[in-house]
Amino acid sequence: MVCVGNAIVDVLAHTDDAFLDRHSMVKGAMQLIEPSLARVIYDEMPPAIEISGGSAANTAAGMAALGARAAFVGKVADDELGRVFTHDINAAGVSFTPAHATGEQLAAGTARCLILVTPDAHRTMNTSLGVAGFLEPGDIDEELLSQASVVYCEGYLWDEPSAKAAIRKAMDVARNVGAAVAFTLSDGFCVDRHRAEFLDLVEKRIDILFANEAEICSLYEVETVEEAADLVAGHCAIACLTQSEKGSLILGRDGTRLRIPAVPATLVDTTGAGDLFAAGFLASWSRGADLAESGRVASIAAGEVISHLGARPQQDLVALVEAAD
Amino acid sequence: MVCVGNAIVDVLAHTDDAFLDRHSMVKGAMQLIEPSLARVIYDEMPPAIEISGGSAANTAAGMAALGARAAFVGKVADDELGRVFTHDINAAGVSFTPAHATGEQLAAGTARCLILVTPDAHRTMNTSLGVAGFLEPGDIDEELLSQASVVYCEGYLWDEPSAKAAIRKAMDVARNVGAAVAFTLSDGFCVDRHRAEFLDLVEKRIDILFANEAEICSLYEVETVEEAADLVAGHCAIACLTQSEKGSLILGRDGTRLRIPAVPATLVDTTGAGDLFAAGFLASWSRGADLAESGRVASIAAGEVISHLGARPQQDLVALVEAAD
Repeated sequence: MVCVGNAIVDVLAHTDDAFLDRHSMVKGAMQLIEPSLARVIYDEMPPAIEISGGSAANTAAGMAALGARAAFVGKVADDELGRVFTHDINAAGVSFTPAHATGEQLAAGTARCLILVTPDAHRTMNTSLGVAGFLEPGDIDEELLSQASVVYCEGYLWDEPSAKAAIRKAMDVARNVGAAVAFTLSDGFCVDRHRAEFLDLVEKRIDILFANEAEICSLYEVETVEEAADLVAGHCAIACLTQSEKGSLILGRDGTRLRIPAVPATLVDTTGAGDLFAAGFLASWSRGADLAESGRVASIAAGEVISHLGARPQQDLVALVEAAD
Repeated sequence: MVCVGNAIVDVLAHTDDAFLDRHSMVKGAMQLIEPSLARVIYDEMPPAIEISGGSAANTAAGMAALGARAAFVGKVADDELGRVFTHDINAAGVSFTPAHATGEQLAAGTARCLILVTPDAHRTMNTSLGVAGFLEPGDIDEELLSQASVVYCEGYLWDEPSAKAAIRKAMDVARNVGAAVAFTLSDGFCVDRHRAEFLDLVEKRIDILFANEAEICSLYEVETVEEAADLVAGHCAIACLTQSEKGSLILGRDGTRLRIPAVPATLVDTTGAGDLFAAGFLASWSRGADLAESGRVASIAAGEVISHLGARPQQDLVALVEAAD
């Protein structure tokens, strides 16, 4: 499996809700910020920890933790955070050869995401994209993708024109080599910004769609997941609609509609929940598991990642899945 | 209170004992390593988290968390990790104006410590000192120290000649302004390397000594803390000898000998236990608390920091101390 996304190091700190209000942040959302604003927010943040993140990168790490062969495509700078990101994803068992920034891009550093975790365990994200946004079609390695059974891309990339072109190329290559195209809508506000194009992707390009409640409702501008489910059913081969503690709804093109319960977990930090759901689902599905089994593994992986700080698995996911059998 | 020490960012990962064996590391010890070896070890480490550390810096953060006015003196490079260190210690409420490296020192980066946490929660440390080792007498701000009631220095600094000279200056200034000189022996192997000089310091320069079992036994080349206690008693005004889960022994020059029990804690990572013991002790003692009360607060602070990954407090220490009343 090949995952394409923003290569990001997360900078995580605990704050209260007043901190979000003071900086006009929308709880639970991701906003892109300029480096100057990132400096202001960071200066006011409590002591933090640095830990590798990035939505599709988290998914790749989760896939590898579940024993799947996974590769990641993204862009880091030749700096300290770039080395941290590269170390961590390689150490997680994911194949990643950094596409280093060149030329004018050199001034931008590796992407970082300032994540504020509030007492209710929700995370609010402020991303300074740096070189991650310079991902371009030339970074998409056709040779690598030709070995993939699934090519997974994150919607966040749609915010940058060159990265968008890179995803389109990845999707084209995937189609040509017979790989399934998987996609996450990433964020409700991201869907707002790109609704028409995302609708077009869902109808024409995506085989396996991942979205949470806010994202799928934003895509179809409806109020409930059930309404959205009626609208998305039939477009993608599979649509996984996640609803936090309410579990998830998995739709098949043949009209299948499965409810998967959430795995009970002590909620510490929701960062990475959707990413690990996708990892669990795709790692199982690509091995021939049915939708119910794939959804079960997805819920276990998501349950693990929300039980600690940081967006990548810390426990042995294979053992957790076996223990739950 | 002013703390003088190595400004370090910790790179923490969980490993098994075999990893330590393979790299000929001594469990629980700190070794200084060259940047080239740091790269080799890092390449083989599992995914890690980056979190600010440094022994005396952890102590300063703990003092501030307990409501004391604390400043830190140490050296960082003008790089990403230097900014992380500076942000975190300032955000912890500690006064720190980085003494940036200059001239030839520029090539060395901010110090990092590769910390392997084994399943028994013990930490084994590999420090690449970078610019931290370039601390020099000129970095000791007499104006700052003249406001201190306690000047606390870490033994680790003794490994570098210029840093050693900086501590000697700090101790001289402290004596001149009437501040108490506090010192930690830091590490058993560090004591081994500098036994004669450390013995001289204990006899002539140190008012408040901190040491764990291995360190104080190494200093006097004896087998038990009790033997060491007989030897150290009378030299320093106060000696705090910590013994992990067995609690600590606090000695006063007047012959006082107090046993302080350890605070029960779920052991996750012992990194910072001694640093936070010193923070709790000094924050209380400098406010006029007696040895028993200072030891009680010290044990609470140490108990908090071993209950999570990382060497700085994550819970509200003031509230913990009040709750324990």
